[in-house]
Amino acid sequence: MSLLLAMTGWHVEDWRARFAALLPDMPVVILGEPFDRRSVHYVASWKHPEGSLSGLPNLAAVFSLGAGVDHLFADTRLPEVPIARVVDPDLTTRMSEYIVLHCLRYLRQQPRYDRQQREKLWDDDRHQPAARSVRVGIMGLGELGQDAARKLQVMGFDVAGWSRSPKAVEGLATFAGSDGMIDFLARTDILVSLLPLTPDTRGLIDAKLLAGLAQGGRLGGPFLINAGRGGLQVEADILAALEAGTLMGATLDVFETEPLPPESPLWSHPAVTVTPHNAAMSEPEAVATLIAAQIRRLEAGEALEHVVDPARGY
Amino acid sequence: MSLLLAMTGWHVEDWRARFAALLPDMPVVILGEPFDRRSVHYVASWKHPEGSLSGLPNLAAVFSLGAGVDHLFADTRLPEVPIARVVDPDLTTRMSEYIVLHCLRYLRQQPRYDRQQREKLWDDDRHQPAARSVRVGIMGLGELGQDAARKLQVMGFDVAGWSRSPKAVEGLATFAGSDGMIDFLARTDILVSLLPLTPDTRGLIDAKLLAGLAQGGRLGGPFLINAGRGGLQVEADILAALEAGTLMGATLDVFETEPLPPESPLWSHPAVTVTPHNAAMSEPEAVATLIAAQIRRLEAGEALEHVVDPARGY
Repeated sequence: MSLLLAMTGWHVEDWRARFAALLPDMPVVILGEPFDRRSVHYVASWKHPEGSLSGLPNLAAVFSLGAGVDHLFADTRLPEVPIARVVDPDLTTRMSEYIVLHCLRYLRQQPRYDRQQREKLWDDDRHQPAARSVRVGIMGLGELGQDAARKLQVMGFDVAGWSRSPKAVEGLATFAGSDGMIDFLARTDILVSLLPLTPDTRGLIDAKLLAGLAQGGRLGGPFLINAGRGGLQVEADILAALEAGTLMGATLDVFETEPLPPESPLWSHPAVTVTPHNAAMSEPEAVATLIAAQIRRLEAGEALEHVVDPARGY
Repeated sequence: MSLLLAMTGWHVEDWRARFAALLPDMPVVILGEPFDRRSVHYVASWKHPEGSLSGLPNLAAVFSLGAGVDHLFADTRLPEVPIARVVDPDLTTRMSEYIVLHCLRYLRQQPRYDRQQREKLWDDDRHQPAARSVRVGIMGLGELGQDAARKLQVMGFDVAGWSRSPKAVEGLATFAGSDGMIDFLARTDILVSLLPLTPDTRGLIDAKLLAGLAQGGRLGGPFLINAGRGGLQVEADILAALEAGTLMGATLDVFETEPLPPESPLWSHPAVTVTPHNAAMSEPEAVATLIAAQIRRLEAGEALEHVVDPARGY
C-alpha cells in the first residue's frame, strides 16, 4: 500500500520528505519513477498530468494539495473515487488577511495617498466615508467567505454574501442563486470573489455582472477584489469597465493565464493592483500534516473529511 | 450666555452653522468679531491663538474640537477651567481602520508587491509569515489603543500594549512605565504609536527607542507606525535607523512640522509611507453633536465627561 505524489511545477522531493516523515509506514512513490500501480491506495495531486491517475485498481482517495480542486476536474479521465479538499485553518486566516487588507486599502484610499506621496502633495481630504457606509459583497460563503465576512464586520464594513444555493450565516445578509444576484450586486460597493472555479462560475465576472454593481456609493463607484480563481474573470470586460468608469478599481490575485504575461495591460493599469496568486498559500508542512491525518483516518476505518461533490465541483 | 468658537485654519462659518442648528437657544460668537466677553460660558477651540481665551470671566468649560488637546496646552495663558476632549466612537473606528490597514500592509508585504507590479515581476514568495507570528506593540492604551489591539487580535496578530501607568486590558499582554518599555520593545516587530503629546512623550520615538525594537523577527526587522502626534518622533533618528537597516519601514501620519515640508527626505524615502494626518478624522457633524451634548449636560447641572487632567496633559 503506497501514496502516489502526482504534481506539476512543484518540488516533489520536498513533498516526499514531508510525507515520509509523517507516514513512516507508508511507501511514497512518485509519478515518472517506476512503481507498482496496484500498490497505490492514495494520491496527493497538484495539477497531475491528464490521465495519469488511470489504471490504479486499488485507489481509495485523491487529495488535492491546494485549497482548490478545479485542477483535478480538469482531468477528463479522473478516476471515480472520493476526492478531498484541504481545509487549512491557517489558509482561511491568510485569505482574510488579504481580503481585509484590500478592502481597507480602498476604503482608506491608500492608492491615492501612494500617488500623492510620489507627488509630495499634502491633501488630507476631510470627507472620507466610514467603513459602516461601505457595502462589501462576498461571493462564496464557504469557510473562506464566512471568515472574511466576520472580520470585515469587526472592522465596521456593511457586509453581505452571495452563494449558489441559499445559505444562512448568523449576522450576515445573504443572497442566493441567479435571482438573488441582481439585488446582491446592486448593494455592493466592493465585490469580493472567493468562488471556486466550476463550469457554472467560469467567466462569471463579465461585463454583465460588473454593470450590475452599485453606482453612486460612498466610494464613488464599485471596486472588485478577485482572490478566487482567474477563470472566474473576463479580463477584457474588467478593463473595459475601468475605461468606462463604471468600475473604479480592481485588485486581482488570480488571472486567466498565470503567471500574468508581461504583455497584459493589467500590469500597468493605474486602477489595477496585481498580486502573484499568493493571497492565501498554505505552508507545505501544514498541508502534508492535514493529508497524513486524513490517510490515518481512512486506515482506522473512519470517514474521509472535506469530500468534494463532483456534480458541484467543490 | 454664549459659545465662543476659537479656531485657526478651519472654516469657522461652517462650525457656526452646525452649532447654531444644534443649540438654537445659545448665541454662537466668533473670535475676531466683536462680542461681549462676559457672555462667553463655553469655548470650542482648534489651535486658538495664544492668550485669546484670557479675560473671559464667566468661562465654564473649554472643548477641544479634535481628539488631541496638546494644541490647548500649547497656550501658556490657558484659563484654569475644565477642559474636555472629544471621545467620538467613529474616530476610534477610523483609527483602527488605519492601524489594521498598515499592519496588514507590512505583514502581507504590499509595498513590495506594488514595486513588483511596476516591474511586471511575478514572484509569489511562498514563505510569508502568518499574522500569529508577528508581534505588534501598541503604545497608548486609551480608547484608541484598546480598540486597535482587539481588532489586530481578531486578524490574528500577536499583540501587546504599553502605557505610562499600569493598565490591565482583558486578553492583552501589557507593559508599563520606563521599566516595562525595554521588555515591550524587545518583543515588538511592528510598533504602533497612539500616545498623546505631553512633555513626557515629546521626542520619545528616538534613536534609543528604535534601537530597542526586536531584531530578527519574522518580518526581517522592525517597522514603525506613528498615528499619534508628530512631536513624539525624532525624524532624523527614524531616517538614520532606516539607513542603518535597524528599522525596515515607517508609516507616518504625523510629522514634526505639518504639512510635511516639500524638502523633507521622508517624502521620497522608499521605506517610508506618508499620509497627510488623516488616520482618524471625525466628521465635523459628529464632533459638534458631541460638544452640544456636553453643553446641554452642563446646563442641566450634570457633570462634564471626558475631562482632561492638566497635570498629565491628556
